[in-house]
Amino acid sequence: MNHTAINLKEKFSKFSECWSPRVIAEMNDYQFKVVKIQGEFVWHRHEDTDEVFMVIEGEMCIEFRDGKVKLEAGELFVIPAGVEHKPFAENECRAMLIEPRGVANTGDAGGERTAEDNVWV
Amino acid sequence: MNHTAINLKEKFSKFSECWSPRVIAEMNDYQFKVVKIQGEFVWHRHEDTDEVFMVIEGEMCIEFRDGKVKLEAGELFVIPAGVEHKPFAENECRAMLIEPRGVANTGDAGGERTAEDNVWV
Repeated sequence: MNHTAINLKEKFSKFSECWSPRVIAEMNDYQFKVVKIQGEFVWHRHEDTDEVFMVIEGEMCIEFRDGKVKLEAGELFVIPAGVEHKPFAENECRAMLIEPRGVANTGDAGGERTAEDNVWV
Repeated sequence: MNHTAINLKEKFSKFSECWSPRVIAEMNDYQFKVVKIQGEFVWHRHEDTDEVFMVIEGEMCIEFRDGKVKLEAGELFVIPAGVEHKPFAENECRAMLIEPRGVANTGDAGGERTAEDNVWV
């Protein structure tokens, strides 16, 4: 068995693209991903699953149709299945996502900002 | 919908007991828990599920029958289903656990160190 810790800072140092989640670990059929966020994403929802954002460095907002939540380092938020949301960060923010394997970053919206699935770092 | 971020530092400030995981969030049928760790736990395994430890403050070790991993703040590790392990921390360590709802802290070992399930903070 591999006994190496997964270090988030080291994982973030290995890529620069924003809005392009990279898988760092799997737990059963769930994946842990790191993502760099800057600027505004697209409105979308994940019909079949909740999704967790945890901020590791910096700060971000998640807008909803009925409000928004601001997340700083050391904070997390669960976006319920089916709820439309739009992530945003003024300055680069480093976050971890936790969600089932195979969830697309753009959810039901699709389009040109859909990142390649299952890219590990 | 509630738009409040879940702040880990604030959650840790609300209890002092070690080895007593507190639930802070649910994602589908998984739970996010915070736990304070100091000293040595019992050898145990979770037969049916992987389990994630992420260190938030301090450092800890997870011993396995064939080695060990040391985790510092900003590091995580996935303990595969069925693998015997024993967490340890010399000084108080604050960690987050992610695992399915209903997983006991002592796994197959049971005994007096089994914490009450599903206690939220």
